[in-house]
Amino acid sequence: MAKRVGNRTIILQNHPHITGYGSVVGKKEHEGPLGKEFDSFSVDSRFGEKTFEKAESRLQMLAAQKAIERADVRKNEIDLIFAGDLLNQCIGSSFGLRELGVPFLGLYGACSTMALGTALASIMVDCGAAKIAAAVTSSHFCSAERQYRFPLEYGSQRTPTSQWTVTGSGALVIQIDENGSSPYIEKVTFGEITDLGVTDSNNMGAAMAPSAASTLKHFFHDTSTGPEDYDVIYTGDLGSVGTQLLYELMDDEGYNLRCHHSDCGLMMFDMKKQNVGAGGSGCGCSASILASFIMHRFMEGDFHNILFMSTGALLSPTSTQQGESIPGVSHLINIKKD
Amino acid sequence: MAKRVGNRTIILQNHPHITGYGSVVGKKEHEGPLGKEFDSFSVDSRFGEKTFEKAESRLQMLAAQKAIERADVRKNEIDLIFAGDLLNQCIGSSFGLRELGVPFLGLYGACSTMALGTALASIMVDCGAAKIAAAVTSSHFCSAERQYRFPLEYGSQRTPTSQWTVTGSGALVIQIDENGSSPYIEKVTFGEITDLGVTDSNNMGAAMAPSAASTLKHFFHDTSTGPEDYDVIYTGDLGSVGTQLLYELMDDEGYNLRCHHSDCGLMMFDMKKQNVGAGGSGCGCSASILASFIMHRFMEGDFHNILFMSTGALLSPTSTQQGESIPGVSHLINIKKD
Repeated sequence: MAKRVGNRTIILQNHPHITGYGSVVGKKEHEGPLGKEFDSFSVDSRFGEKTFEKAESRLQMLAAQKAIERADVRKNEIDLIFAGDLLNQCIGSSFGLRELGVPFLGLYGACSTMALGTALASIMVDCGAAKIAAAVTSSHFCSAERQYRFPLEYGSQRTPTSQWTVTGSGALVIQIDENGSSPYIEKVTFGEITDLGVTDSNNMGAAMAPSAASTLKHFFHDTSTGPEDYDVIYTGDLGSVGTQLLYELMDDEGYNLRCHHSDCGLMMFDMKKQNVGAGGSGCGCSASILASFIMHRFMEGDFHNILFMSTGALLSPTSTQQGESIPGVSHLINIKKD
Repeated sequence: MAKRVGNRTIILQNHPHITGYGSVVGKKEHEGPLGKEFDSFSVDSRFGEKTFEKAESRLQMLAAQKAIERADVRKNEIDLIFAGDLLNQCIGSSFGLRELGVPFLGLYGACSTMALGTALASIMVDCGAAKIAAAVTSSHFCSAERQYRFPLEYGSQRTPTSQWTVTGSGALVIQIDENGSSPYIEKVTFGEITDLGVTDSNNMGAAMAPSAASTLKHFFHDTSTGPEDYDVIYTGDLGSVGTQLLYELMDDEGYNLRCHHSDCGLMMFDMKKQNVGAGGSGCGCSASILASFIMHRFMEGDFHNILFMSTGALLSPTSTQQGESIPGVSHLINIKKD
């Protein structure tokens, strides 16, 4: 049985382990500071496909395959796969994982999807609803730009607060690991929708920061812990603007995050040289970093206890055109390794 | 602990109960044969809002409020809410439930969303990850037409195999019910993505039928039961074309569904008089019927053991334009009342 502690936090008592992980990125991401961490990359932004959307589907399949291979399971042993992406009707996921033949649970959480999917997959394994579950998500700069902003051919200018959608995908395989050597998910906190009225869709970091602060605050309260109790607190993806706001919002709550926090949106690219505005974003950003760099640090013994919180902006081009503000949602998982 | 049986089916041993349910529909749905079953309706297709999208958000909030009221809980007692809809980036859900202040888990399963959300909410309650969970979904004819087909003002013609998106929303509240008088979810089978190559987005029944047959076949195998063991098997929404195909596909497997099956898409409207092509569709169709008519039959003692399977077509206008076929997914829940 899962156990609830405090208002929001769920403790997984059976320690669902991350036994497989896989990551794939595009050329620009490979040229960034984490380039060598990813399992594979492609210089072709279409990944051999005819369209950017099909390329994104291919990203998901490649990441999932790598995670399955690393977990050393057969794909038909996977009981459930949680997946989502940024595309309308989440076609990156449905077409990407169509060939897998595994029960498919579609998610939509914008950039919060990786934590959402990993949390749900972990709970399913913890409670016995699945023996092996997986979570995967993706984003693609070119498919996102043309859907959310403008077709690339327009060459439109970007504001300094705007974030750069990462071309990438990350996948995890979760199961109870008999010998217990892999990292496991111990706690989960799902976040509520938070909307403080930010309406600038080129400043999503500002829109998401309040939801990140809300979920983190709930988690600290529920567990009676603070920033200093964790090796690192990862968010994804607040970028430079949202990160600063998160620090200020958490200061107000009495928590100083500054020495204990990294944002995946600020890790993916060289912020000085790669011209990415306020940093990376997209479901694939935190997903590909979790399924590479973060997992590598666990495997190498650098980490024993981290928080991973994905943050999503639940807007659409239609809601923006209709004058709506931007709701945010953030989900958190606590990953440990003995 | 949940228990797995056979390849795909999950047994919930703690009997998460449906203690609250709420439904809201539009004018045309209220004029249909189930009109009196719904909690409320509006003759204004904008439900007092400025746009169809905001109307859809309002539908979700109204249905959720009614379900919460009927469950006799306070909204801040709800630990998790699962929600999704057909709109790009699921804005019907995120904006509809923004004010609720409840941890929000976004789903995308097209018309399969109600079974997906109810199944996940039930598992969460069963395993103790939530004490009270909720599931809600919606669709709106006008927002769907303009997003998936043409703006209504074009007055475009419809093919006879096309389905009519239901304006409606249904919500359920799930919790362990101490006195045990309400219906409960006992089994869940999540479906895989099935794609037999149908490319006609005006014939989604045909695209979804193979996935419905796949999930149902798995469930029957896993549980060693057949159609005759259930009061009714509900699907939503195959319409007239998809229903016929489901019968034929299940015949091939040795199961005769004809006397044990109803499709929500064929129940919502008067198929002779209301000019809805092959029947109703949309996440809100099966959701509003589950949260009204089906729940009423349970409460009145007519039903003791049913299957409810929502079927989704995982296409987008972009995937259709890119020549892709239409993947389907179907999730099933077994609802019982002692």
